[in-house]
Amino acid sequence: MIVAVTPNPAWDVTYRVAELVPGTSHRVPDVTGRAGGKGVNVARVVRDLGGDALVVAPVGGLHGQAFTASLADDGVAARLVATGVELRQSVAVVPEQASGWDGGHPTLFNESGEPLPDGVWDGLVATVAEAVGELGPEVVTISGSLPPGTTENQLAELIGAGRRGGAAVLVDTSGDALVWAARARADLVKPNRTEALGATGTGNVHDAAAALRELGAGAVVITDGGDGMRYDDGATRLTARLDTELAGNPTGAGDAALAALALGWTLPWPERLRRAVATSAASVTEPVAGRVDADLAASLLARTDLKEETLA
Amino acid sequence: MIVAVTPNPAWDVTYRVAELVPGTSHRVPDVTGRAGGKGVNVARVVRDLGGDALVVAPVGGLHGQAFTASLADDGVAARLVATGVELRQSVAVVPEQASGWDGGHPTLFNESGEPLPDGVWDGLVATVAEAVGELGPEVVTISGSLPPGTTENQLAELIGAGRRGGAAVLVDTSGDALVWAARARADLVKPNRTEALGATGTGNVHDAAAALRELGAGAVVITDGGDGMRYDDGATRLTARLDTELAGNPTGAGDAALAALALGWTLPWPERLRRAVATSAASVTEPVAGRVDADLAASLLARTDLKEETLA
Repeated sequence: MIVAVTPNPAWDVTYRVAELVPGTSHRVPDVTGRAGGKGVNVARVVRDLGGDALVVAPVGGLHGQAFTASLADDGVAARLVATGVELRQSVAVVPEQASGWDGGHPTLFNESGEPLPDGVWDGLVATVAEAVGELGPEVVTISGSLPPGTTENQLAELIGAGRRGGAAVLVDTSGDALVWAARARADLVKPNRTEALGATGTGNVHDAAAALRELGAGAVVITDGGDGMRYDDGATRLTARLDTELAGNPTGAGDAALAALALGWTLPWPERLRRAVATSAASVTEPVAGRVDADLAASLLARTDLKEETLA
Repeated sequence: MIVAVTPNPAWDVTYRVAELVPGTSHRVPDVTGRAGGKGVNVARVVRDLGGDALVVAPVGGLHGQAFTASLADDGVAARLVATGVELRQSVAVVPEQASGWDGGHPTLFNESGEPLPDGVWDGLVATVAEAVGELGPEVVTISGSLPPGTTENQLAELIGAGRRGGAAVLVDTSGDALVWAARARADLVKPNRTEALGATGTGNVHDAAAALRELGAGAVVITDGGDGMRYDDGATRLTARLDTELAGNPTGAGDAALAALALGWTLPWPERLRRAVATSAASVTEPVAGRVDADLAASLLARTDLKEETLA
């Protein structure tokens, strides 16, 4: 059982348009909406891989109603904390054809969202503590940004709620929150290369991993797109990488990796890291984030190379 | 009293972003939402000019709830017909600074919306007929696009509901619906130049006005941006135009014009047209559609020139 926490979820809307031309009007005949946020993607991938997952997130308002209905429609178990404020919306504009403007890439508009009213974060922490106490998950994941105004102490309480209940707490975030997660002794932090370098002010992934461990992180995995993933504990450095490059949609690849790391948490690190790479690669072939073909992930595992270096 | 019908309203969301860069992610710290649709703008401007207006529109779903609450918050009277399907959303991305991409112009994403379930259009027609019977408005306006799947006969029934009750029916729409409105003997059709030429397949506004009159329209006013507005009844041609050009936000300028034409419906045509131009120009100075400073509109009236030509 994995408890997947999304502190700052969103109602995700996708607009498919013929072509994005800035400064003009676009008809949008094809609109889809669904519960979004990195932790929701983690939970969906855990399920795709045959595991059990529970989404925990604070939501409210009309988009919160839509979010709740979307998870129920998809059969994703959730314990949602009512915020009393409108859930933010994210709009992804996806062009049918690449234009000179966007090169065929989605253009994203992510509302910042409202700060959580007093007491809501405490409710989130209590919900995680309860879920951990009742369900005994091996792992609690915490994914994505924090609501505006969240403090270091609040994140530490959330991480503590998982750890005190005996779960490993895996955190995928960026900026100050990444530093805070390490200082709160998260069992794993999983930034991508840019996030790791940005948060630590270091110049390479080795130094970034060392800095995050020194702050208190139990383990550090840094993802680096097509260059694979690196685990570095100061004594050993593991690099796992697919032997080919898959074209597709990179959105959600990091969430798929975190789902695999969570499900494989008791495996030896070399195997854990290879599974994360294979699962992440399988997710890239899907048109939407939060989906993995388990058979494809299994077959890609055979094509995932591991390099192990012993450090001085 | 003006009854302002919006057959295909929207929940309007505005995203203010620093700069729009296609193919990338944007943080949106500033989000505003409100009841939208051209008829809603007409009603708001009628109120700004001291008149009474009633919004009639079909809405549903979560955005329909937000739409209803928004009108109530703004004190706009409304009779809304429940559709049972989600109201469409329109997103306007407004850049703080002009970029090479958009030249500082808003980029709009207008969801097409769902077809109305069986019976909803009949409910809309009945609601208009009731409102006309009870309130005795001088004018019913019908503004904007029609829901997907609306037929010519359905639009004719809506126009008929107003006319049978003794109200003048003024229609501002485009494409097939503009032709249908003329054939249904709307008392006025008010396309812009592009819409008039597009719907009639003519090459100039004089021929377009003649074609629309021949189809059955009682009167034709064609708006032409900074070049003012033209009324043309075959015997007389009136052209009203501001003696200067105002910079600003042209969105909603046509709705302001329709509001002024509705409020001035019993005035002689030269005065009616001048008021439409002055009101439309005043709306351009407002940051959002559906708002006019009545004092500014009155002062711009003195700066509105009228040219009258007697045709052969």
